[in-house]
Amino acid sequence: MKCRICGGEATIKLKSYNIKLCEQDFLNFFKRRVAEAIREYKMFTHQDRILVAVSGGKDSLSLWDILAQMGYQTTGYHLYLNIADASEQAFEAVKNFADKNNLPLIVDRLDEIIGAGIEQASKVMKKPPCSVCGMIKRYRFNRLAEEKGFSVVVTGHHLDDECATLLGNLLHWQEGYLARQYPVLEEKEGLVKRAKPFVYVGEEEIKIYARVRGINYVQTPCPYSRGATSLIYKRIIKEIEEQMPSTKIYFLKAFFKNYRERFYAEEEKVKLHPCPECGYLTVGEICNFCLLKKKLQKFSSQK
Amino acid sequence: MKCRICGGEATIKLKSYNIKLCEQDFLNFFKRRVAEAIREYKMFTHQDRILVAVSGGKDSLSLWDILAQMGYQTTGYHLYLNIADASEQAFEAVKNFADKNNLPLIVDRLDEIIGAGIEQASKVMKKPPCSVCGMIKRYRFNRLAEEKGFSVVVTGHHLDDECATLLGNLLHWQEGYLARQYPVLEEKEGLVKRAKPFVYVGEEEIKIYARVRGINYVQTPCPYSRGATSLIYKRIIKEIEEQMPSTKIYFLKAFFKNYRERFYAEEEKVKLHPCPECGYLTVGEICNFCLLKKKLQKFSSQK
Repeated sequence: MKCRICGGEATIKLKSYNIKLCEQDFLNFFKRRVAEAIREYKMFTHQDRILVAVSGGKDSLSLWDILAQMGYQTTGYHLYLNIADASEQAFEAVKNFADKNNLPLIVDRLDEIIGAGIEQASKVMKKPPCSVCGMIKRYRFNRLAEEKGFSVVVTGHHLDDECATLLGNLLHWQEGYLARQYPVLEEKEGLVKRAKPFVYVGEEEIKIYARVRGINYVQTPCPYSRGATSLIYKRIIKEIEEQMPSTKIYFLKAFFKNYRERFYAEEEKVKLHPCPECGYLTVGEICNFCLLKKKLQKFSSQK
Repeated sequence: MKCRICGGEATIKLKSYNIKLCEQDFLNFFKRRVAEAIREYKMFTHQDRILVAVSGGKDSLSLWDILAQMGYQTTGYHLYLNIADASEQAFEAVKNFADKNNLPLIVDRLDEIIGAGIEQASKVMKKPPCSVCGMIKRYRFNRLAEEKGFSVVVTGHHLDDECATLLGNLLHWQEGYLARQYPVLEEKEGLVKRAKPFVYVGEEEIKIYARVRGINYVQTPCPYSRGATSLIYKRIIKEIEEQMPSTKIYFLKAFFKNYRERFYAEEEKVKLHPCPECGYLTVGEICNFCLLKKKLQKFSSQK
């Protein structure tokens, strides 16, 4: 097997692109695709201070790795969820990566910031754990951006994730979600800018990247992800790509370029105001993060 | 298992609708859904003379059966493709159905109308058999409509077919196809009106209908359908429905109602003129059907 670029020994085969590459040319190829997405969607520049959301999995650690490699100013952000076994492993992976690469890391421990674990938080909010976890992370992203001057938060969502989301949104014609699905969400009203630099690289490529770069990551998925509908869509997207290579990239690129604008996000008529407890902009009486804390206090005082 | 409608013994379970029914109430349920589609899209009335395209499979024979049951004026149309084994079986199923139900049937034999089989036609046209077969059928539909006064042609395309087509068109953002996908295509410029009365019933329901009504149909698919991409999409649609019942119907209905109009068919700037050979309206010098006949003549004179 010969490398398409240098003609040397190829060890990597990318079916979606119908190319064989050696490790070095794979790394270059991978970096070019990430750089292309950053440039195309004006995600950030070398002047930005970037907060990288890291779970300890291959996607987020690979993202942090490549952005650091490309010379961007990155700081990791990890939310320690206090899930038995799982959280400690995830934290170790993140901590080791940061130490090894001498990169700054911010860790929030759920028990410290809300005084409870995710299971209990989910119970008092009467919402699924993933929804509460997402809310807490968004809250912390925005607070940290404000307090420590980060101009953008990046996440490891990749081509397969985005295609799966798009498929689900189309199957159910989720107009508002379709309108908002984009590789970059600009800053507005107290919400920090968010970007997905892996939007054009697939999960398989990230796996190869992590292996070639020797990144130690947590392989077990979050226990709460079991049975998620997103996993059904991801499996289907993999099947489609398997049968018709390069469908994924066209499906997503053409949507962003030509079709997303045909869907309309509901107008946000609601007025935001600062939360009386913490100052975070919210539509509710108090913000959801403070609401969670209040509910947890009430719950523990009733015990 | 109790029938949701009459409380009697239910023998049929419809997962997509989460209901159990007895045979009689299933037939009523099925008929209501077909009647709803006919009415909603103004497909035809009892005054129309309807040409039913019948292959001999469960979909088209069930369609013919229910339309006849509902008192519509139907005539079957079958194209005998001269495929070894397959065609004779298909023809027998269609002929037996017509005889048993005392319904008029028109049969075109490919060897008689073009003097060759589908394989040879595909070869001289340098197009896949399915594409040539479709062209011949469309040509014959329109000629028969004109010559014998049929006002509409109906086909057995069902919910699963239409969802599979929609999925494929979205994955590849086939804008023109998206704009044209609709349960009814109005008559225009020599093209007879076409309709799909099964657009809101799934393949599983049609199978049950055919069984309950005792319809003898051909079970082996056309040998040329093997490996068709449409089969991949159909399998995926089945998988999605299995995991999330009633996704199919919403996916398709909402598309027709709210989203199809956001896609644009390319403007047909081309002028149609009558084919000098047969008078059929065409964009080419001669129409494709006459082109096929000419190519076949040339081919056989070269032998």
